[in-house]
Amino acid sequence: MKIVAAKKILKANDQLAAANRRFFHQAGVFVVNILGSPGGGKTTLIESLASILNSNGAISVIEGDLAGTVDADRLSARGLPVVQITTEGACHLDANMVAAALDGLPLSRGGWLFIENVGNLVCPAGFDLGENLRIVILSVPEGDDKVIKYPTVFQSTQAVVISKVDLLPYFEFQPQRVRETLSRLNPQASVFEVSAKTGQGMGELAEWLIARRTAAACEVAG
Amino acid sequence: MKIVAAKKILKANDQLAAANRRFFHQAGVFVVNILGSPGGGKTTLIESLASILNSNGAISVIEGDLAGTVDADRLSARGLPVVQITTEGACHLDANMVAAALDGLPLSRGGWLFIENVGNLVCPAGFDLGENLRIVILSVPEGDDKVIKYPTVFQSTQAVVISKVDLLPYFEFQPQRVRETLSRLNPQASVFEVSAKTGQGMGELAEWLIARRTAAACEVAG
Repeated sequence: MKIVAAKKILKANDQLAAANRRFFHQAGVFVVNILGSPGGGKTTLIESLASILNSNGAISVIEGDLAGTVDADRLSARGLPVVQITTEGACHLDANMVAAALDGLPLSRGGWLFIENVGNLVCPAGFDLGENLRIVILSVPEGDDKVIKYPTVFQSTQAVVISKVDLLPYFEFQPQRVRETLSRLNPQASVFEVSAKTGQGMGELAEWLIARRTAAACEVAG
Repeated sequence: MKIVAAKKILKANDQLAAANRRFFHQAGVFVVNILGSPGGGKTTLIESLASILNSNGAISVIEGDLAGTVDADRLSARGLPVVQITTEGACHLDANMVAAALDGLPLSRGGWLFIENVGNLVCPAGFDLGENLRIVILSVPEGDDKVIKYPTVFQSTQAVVISKVDLLPYFEFQPQRVRETLSRLNPQASVFEVSAKTGQGMGELAEWLIARRTAAACEVAG
């Protein structure tokens, strides 16, 4: 009798993710996987980071959505090279989809690849894409209780970006509650409070990304 | 060789959902499955509907979350009988979980059961729980492009509730764009614009629910 366990399927994704990681490393590209709820501000964050980071390397984007090209159109209109993955119902990107998307995407040595995952606080957490690091966006309108309710994704990330902080006066959202819950769940994670609208916190986030890229390069060199 | 197709698994859920539906019908309870992104306002909508509908039958609630009891605690504090399902990582409720939750839940003839699904615009769409009808919440901060991006869930619903419309002045959200996309995707779906905060549109939504409950009863009788 042959038994195929679900864990083996995840393992296949891990192998493909490792292949992606080797490819990204050889191409000299730093890859950021961006997760978050629908409408949390993932595309806007990429737009904002692109305008800050473009003097620090070329920027390419992979967009994941169930259907349509709304976000890819938005980023294309800003002159960013972007490949749209339509998952046709799947609730997350996987390493195989990302590998397929790389075919049509110009990547520059010393550049950045931002991968916008499907809007979902659950499914993408379990799928490594071969990224260097992962960011989870939590927007102020979603509420500060989301770390308690969706622990897996917040455990899996190197940074939590509290977005739309310009809206804090209109919501009962306390960033300190996010920090406290996270300090128990994932004490290594960095926390940023940003507004892509006003620019607040974006410079700090960009600097952190640059520092992480440098640290990754040193790790490899060392 | 035995082949187990994934579609068979869905079919098992459909059978369990049909059993739930028979149970709800015999118990004389009208069941509403509430879907939406994390932080879209599902719990707040239930709180608001409960205060309007409580003269039209007793209200019970099933809360679905990956972890914790934040929402169940909130509703319990308002005196509502509530059972919390913690999915421990699963991105949606299924009919089997709901059946298990019914054990501990008081249901009244002529009453309502609201089921708050896991915050997710993708996975819950494919899982019938045995409900009478389904509502998808789309909150203003999420953006009016979500119907295009997450068509499956919006196709599967009897109503779309645009929530937090008190925030419309602060966002570039056009309810008309939601209505237009939906008129192609799911023309039968009703659309409501509500603010649980100000009460706007809540009466209209409650009346629609009462009318749907009456229609369901007539269908069975006739």
